[in-house]
Amino acid sequence: MANIKYDISDISSLIPEGEMALGKDSLEKAKDTLVSKSGAGSDFLGWRDILGDPNDALLTDIIQTSETIREKADVLVCIGIGGSYLGSKAVLDALLPNFGNNGTEVIFLGHHLGGTYIKQLLAYLEGKEVYVNVISKSGTTLEPSVSFRIMMDWLKFNYPNPHERVIATTDPSKGALNLLIDDHGWKKYVIPPDVGGRFSVLTPVGLVPLAIGGIDVRSLFYGAVSAFEDYENGSDESSDKYALYRYLFHEQGYKIEALAHFEPSLHSIGGWWQQLFAESEGKDGKGVFPVCLQYTTDLHSVGQYLQEGQRTIFETFLVVNQAPSEDVEVPHSAQNLEGLNYTAGRSISYINDKAYLATRLAHKEGGVPVASIELANQSAETIGQMIYFFERAVALSAYMIGVNPFDQPGVEAYKKESS
Amino acid sequence: MANIKYDISDISSLIPEGEMALGKDSLEKAKDTLVSKSGAGSDFLGWRDILGDPNDALLTDIIQTSETIREKADVLVCIGIGGSYLGSKAVLDALLPNFGNNGTEVIFLGHHLGGTYIKQLLAYLEGKEVYVNVISKSGTTLEPSVSFRIMMDWLKFNYPNPHERVIATTDPSKGALNLLIDDHGWKKYVIPPDVGGRFSVLTPVGLVPLAIGGIDVRSLFYGAVSAFEDYENGSDESSDKYALYRYLFHEQGYKIEALAHFEPSLHSIGGWWQQLFAESEGKDGKGVFPVCLQYTTDLHSVGQYLQEGQRTIFETFLVVNQAPSEDVEVPHSAQNLEGLNYTAGRSISYINDKAYLATRLAHKEGGVPVASIELANQSAETIGQMIYFFERAVALSAYMIGVNPFDQPGVEAYKKESS
Repeated sequence: MANIKYDISDISSLIPEGEMALGKDSLEKAKDTLVSKSGAGSDFLGWRDILGDPNDALLTDIIQTSETIREKADVLVCIGIGGSYLGSKAVLDALLPNFGNNGTEVIFLGHHLGGTYIKQLLAYLEGKEVYVNVISKSGTTLEPSVSFRIMMDWLKFNYPNPHERVIATTDPSKGALNLLIDDHGWKKYVIPPDVGGRFSVLTPVGLVPLAIGGIDVRSLFYGAVSAFEDYENGSDESSDKYALYRYLFHEQGYKIEALAHFEPSLHSIGGWWQQLFAESEGKDGKGVFPVCLQYTTDLHSVGQYLQEGQRTIFETFLVVNQAPSEDVEVPHSAQNLEGLNYTAGRSISYINDKAYLATRLAHKEGGVPVASIELANQSAETIGQMIYFFERAVALSAYMIGVNPFDQPGVEAYKKESS
Repeated sequence: MANIKYDISDISSLIPEGEMALGKDSLEKAKDTLVSKSGAGSDFLGWRDILGDPNDALLTDIIQTSETIREKADVLVCIGIGGSYLGSKAVLDALLPNFGNNGTEVIFLGHHLGGTYIKQLLAYLEGKEVYVNVISKSGTTLEPSVSFRIMMDWLKFNYPNPHERVIATTDPSKGALNLLIDDHGWKKYVIPPDVGGRFSVLTPVGLVPLAIGGIDVRSLFYGAVSAFEDYENGSDESSDKYALYRYLFHEQGYKIEALAHFEPSLHSIGGWWQQLFAESEGKDGKGVFPVCLQYTTDLHSVGQYLQEGQRTIFETFLVVNQAPSEDVEVPHSAQNLEGLNYTAGRSISYINDKAYLATRLAHKEGGVPVASIELANQSAETIGQMIYFFERAVALSAYMIGVNPFDQPGVEAYKKESS
């Protein structure tokens, strides 16, 4: 495969031999823990099992359902929060056009408590053909649940057969939604009980809204399957190496990892990655705080800090090697008043690549440890591989720092305070 | 005024007396340095002068220009990066509807090197009435300059009188754009030479695209003027206190400040704030790294880390006291399967307020220093006040940690590497 490379050429020399030996030892133990299902949270390893034993019939069912809905729906309102939102958002933004949509527009709801947003969304939906996908394992999470109440009222007011427009993605048997599914005959998809929210994008949680939004979910899914196989049999160690270096910088006292990309459509990948790492590692007073940066935009905001602020950040570039199929050339200027004719005839993505190399060098010289995750291209297949690359890495890095990668006891704290 | 309050009730006890005394001493010195124009970078204090001596004729001119363009334009393509982008984006997102626009759509360009974005933008613009505002002091910055070349070619190809559609915002006399302005008779607005990019949103840099986008820039501007007066005469010390506590937490070794808001439309304010603080403070190995969080969304991603990860973050909530004019109520459910009937009849913004209070309490109990900046409402006037609240605070806090708040030597590093 090797559609994803992890380039450590600028950081391998930063780790003393003794630390590296300890790190590699810790990595081997973490791999054993993961594979033998002997570690904390090992009831939640279903995100590996779904790739080890692909359910192709489920993919077919999702794609067929999505084709039916795509024929009818202007908008899919996708109701979910956390892992029931960030994965779909990430993949849609990475693979859909920057302007407009791919037939059926996917709009998210239930991912916050913005009253004005909801009010204005309902106005926007007037006169459109609207379908709803509500996604919640328990069916009781505050934000999606109140949003779903509002959305159901709206469907009932606007359509004669509102229940035909609802897809519920939830636990196989438990939770509040299952009772309603039976009553109303909603289309149902199952969230495997052993897959946590932040690892769920390759279950129906992500696959259903992605398919309805026009994504090739079969390529996405089997991309992840191929990564699973290569990492599992040890023929590709890039994910493991990423986990190793994160661990080593954590042990050296770095507080922040910046995931920096140069392609604007990858920005929501950063949001998904941020949850995956913050929620898996951030416990027991440990973990590196994950921050996503969009370059070159953010070179003109936090770039100054990266270059010369506190030395507490290590930086991982997420770059795409293949030039995009849609691109623009810089025109020649007879006057050349800005002195940029050296870029004339070059594509914007070519200049973007040069900016990446220049940034990496400048930050390295500024004392920032810099590494790169290189995607061969920005296809559904490669994005699927990237998803598993990060999922495996965070499981390993969390085990290495000694925390349970799969729980999130702190997320409940604000809910308890509010009840 | 007091449209902005800074609530320190949960952090004042965290600072030992001796540290507080030193901090207050440092604050007084920083205020003297700022007001007497005796500190590093004091050639760049024009962001204060424009508020101390408002140019109302300029506001009138901008508003008149914007009205003419709003009558004709479907889209304003606003070309700029860093401070020529983040301020306009922040205010537009805070004050415009969540869906659609307010007559003329403002689309940003030149804020990155996304070739696919540009290509797809040009396709999106086909058949629309398009005007362009290019914003650059030097006229030679890479990203906006190459984007402007492309955009000018597009204008020339599509319209008989392309130059009537261009507004250039630049230095009074220097720079590459001034030569073209003279040649083509473009409408020109001036960036005061003594105002740096990240402090420029209340100059034509921000005011022109904001007015064209449908923002009441007079209210915005005079909101800032009123804040300037109150902070200057000492009748309101909220901005100074924010600077003081940032400094105190910096000295205690905190690495990250999280600015957390609960209203989704405030998210781009966080992007503007991030540049303002990262670029002003992040030098000489100093500064707190600024991160913007959108709650409750991010409570389900980085919330776990805030609650239980490394204790290196202090948190500033940015909240709006007045309920929004557009809101939705939670309907009652006869079945009440999710057990949420206790929210029935409540507005979403009411529940959002409860979530804020619960989050603040939970994070406090988790050992995070928590403070709040409370905006009386989300009007143009209050957003204007908030802009000056932060601008003054960062000038003071940067002087307190001993750096020049107004330069950005590290931003040039990646440009040098690429040339």
